[in-house]
Amino acid sequence: MSEAPKGNAIVSQSGGPTGVINASLVGVIEAAQKSEKIEKIYGAVHAVEGIVKDEFVDLTEIDYKTLDIVASTPSSALGSSRDKPDEAYCREILEICKKRNAAYFYYIGGNDSANTCKIINEQAEAAGYNMRAFHVPKTIDNDLRTTDHCPGYGTAAKFVACALMGDDLDNRALPGVKIDVIMGRDAGWLTAASTLGQRREDDGPHLVYVPERPVSIEKMVEDIKGVYNKLGRCVVAVSEGIKDTDGTTWAKKLAENAEVDSHGNVQLSGTGALADFLAGKIKGGTGIKRVRADTFGYLQRSFAGLQSSTDVSEARETGRKAVEFSMEYPSGSAIMKRTGSGENYGVKFERTELSNVAEFTKDLPEEYINDEGNGVTPAFKEYAYPLCGELPETGYLGNNPKV
Amino acid sequence: MSEAPKGNAIVSQSGGPTGVINASLVGVIEAAQKSEKIEKIYGAVHAVEGIVKDEFVDLTEIDYKTLDIVASTPSSALGSSRDKPDEAYCREILEICKKRNAAYFYYIGGNDSANTCKIINEQAEAAGYNMRAFHVPKTIDNDLRTTDHCPGYGTAAKFVACALMGDDLDNRALPGVKIDVIMGRDAGWLTAASTLGQRREDDGPHLVYVPERPVSIEKMVEDIKGVYNKLGRCVVAVSEGIKDTDGTTWAKKLAENAEVDSHGNVQLSGTGALADFLAGKIKGGTGIKRVRADTFGYLQRSFAGLQSSTDVSEARETGRKAVEFSMEYPSGSAIMKRTGSGENYGVKFERTELSNVAEFTKDLPEEYINDEGNGVTPAFKEYAYPLCGELPETGYLGNNPKV
Repeated sequence: MSEAPKGNAIVSQSGGPTGVINASLVGVIEAAQKSEKIEKIYGAVHAVEGIVKDEFVDLTEIDYKTLDIVASTPSSALGSSRDKPDEAYCREILEICKKRNAAYFYYIGGNDSANTCKIINEQAEAAGYNMRAFHVPKTIDNDLRTTDHCPGYGTAAKFVACALMGDDLDNRALPGVKIDVIMGRDAGWLTAASTLGQRREDDGPHLVYVPERPVSIEKMVEDIKGVYNKLGRCVVAVSEGIKDTDGTTWAKKLAENAEVDSHGNVQLSGTGALADFLAGKIKGGTGIKRVRADTFGYLQRSFAGLQSSTDVSEARETGRKAVEFSMEYPSGSAIMKRTGSGENYGVKFERTELSNVAEFTKDLPEEYINDEGNGVTPAFKEYAYPLCGELPETGYLGNNPKV
Repeated sequence: MSEAPKGNAIVSQSGGPTGVINASLVGVIEAAQKSEKIEKIYGAVHAVEGIVKDEFVDLTEIDYKTLDIVASTPSSALGSSRDKPDEAYCREILEICKKRNAAYFYYIGGNDSANTCKIINEQAEAAGYNMRAFHVPKTIDNDLRTTDHCPGYGTAAKFVACALMGDDLDNRALPGVKIDVIMGRDAGWLTAASTLGQRREDDGPHLVYVPERPVSIEKMVEDIKGVYNKLGRCVVAVSEGIKDTDGTTWAKKLAENAEVDSHGNVQLSGTGALADFLAGKIKGGTGIKRVRADTFGYLQRSFAGLQSSTDVSEARETGRKAVEFSMEYPSGSAIMKRTGSGENYGVKFERTELSNVAEFTKDLPEEYINDEGNGVTPAFKEYAYPLCGELPETGYLGNNPKV
């Protein structure tokens, strides 16, 4: 293996923000500050968009106090971008890397970012330019392959769990049907996390629908009627990406209908439209009077002052490990392997090939979804509990014995 | 003044839940447990609905550990009700009070609950039944008269402030227009709290619209264009109760349009419809491509694990004070007067007549809204800062000098 090159480092943050993507940034910075191989640390503003515009801030001398504040701040402190660079775009990036004398390229993001790293790495190699491109995993969707879980998921999971704990108590106080639409276009990981605050036998969400298990409105209505008849109330967690039994997402069907009817003023993505549509269908289908729907939206990924303690420390360590691995390997991604479960939960960090993380994603596996396709299994909870950290205890008195 | 009667106490929680309504319940219980005048403490399940069905739980011997957990739990631990009892309904309540030998009646709720207390008190007096009805203020809307502020507001304000802090950082990372619809059908108190996390000069929300100041879509579009042209992004906080310049709420107009067009599947209250409508109008009016809208929904009033420390201690004390005041006065409400501001913030508790709190509500005063009608004044922030307690510090690096 060739010796680690000496030069500058570029770090940037891509895609949707998370509650701990800044902890990973800080991990990269503090490890890079310690490295003898790294001279200047350049932060690219707005990810690849900033790189091709040669827009950087200097992070070389940034102090620990600032770093600690940034690590506890949600969203992307360097700004982000939704661009998915193709070969030509990556060549522009590489030119700037050369101009900036970058020997290290750290890219914090999801599977698309791993792919960008991969292309840049291949181009650098082909050009005989000695630069090490490393991917630092992040996503609230938890859908990256190879790693046990993704930095960012635990904090989003904690938000969703706390939200459902509160919402379930709200639904106890004022009973009816409550539908909560949760982020996750392709995978149900975050929606499944809605169950993590359950303690009492009748705690909601009572039904959980994920994209991995297509469901008809008719089945959903029947499920809800069943719970409502038993408990007098029903809390439902739904992934924004849920699909009808023909495999089409409900969001897409809704968009098509909206176009046909030319309701030009109804937005159809990142809005409350799906929740409202479902609430209408369920109200009509069940005949239950009080049906309400919330769409959690961006709060799930960027809420100030709420982090999973496990997630934030793992995210920071992921950043540090990416730098450490880049001293040993020409490219890669810093992933986690679980070393124990329950009380013995722990992880070790490993370097994996970029191709193991790039492009494809990981669905919620079959064994985490119940047979009915409307809930999670104990195996999912065992997997996810340690990731979202400690959840508050709650008390309800209305079910005490009547006197 | 006649001596305080000896007998049982009934306590219940009414209307929309809050993050600290249970702290007030616990305050009532712990003070009642200490009182020599009070024998049994009955908690009515689902407020007045439970009372007329004679459904009570026994809180007389409930232990401190349970009380502490309940005090930190959002929503209404005894269940709630939206019923607004008329004279006949109140007579049914009074009959149950007699049957339960209640000498004290504590009702935690908003202005309608104060009114219910008032009716019951008058009826008891007319019937020569010696019972003291006390109101314990709560509402996230902060719109009760006479009291400086309402238990429940500070915690909801903290949620909204943390949400906007995160959302503003999200909007920095991926710029565009972001609209957040915040609870408050009649008053803009909670929407105004969206500004409390602002620290940097360009921190959002950049525009704030409250029901007290009607606004046309055209004006809103112009305001947003102005901010967007300056900052390249814009975060907007809007009360769910905002009105058009003719005084009609946008929600109502939207509902009427929806009926006319018979889009039967679009819900219009407690949903994302208003946010989506505004996003559509603003996208069309400004020509800005990335316009997103979230409706915060029930999370604002029931989110587990998030309380304002000031709010929770004041709410608990409000409950205790109601019991103490009921030993001195035949009826009333336990309100707060501010004794100092800024570093010297503090409150004292007073008993006021039920009629001072019942029925009518309190708008955001003129001096808390800017001249343009699209933001709050420093005076509002000075008023509200101490109520929502400590907010997290955040860091953003993307505006550091470019190198």
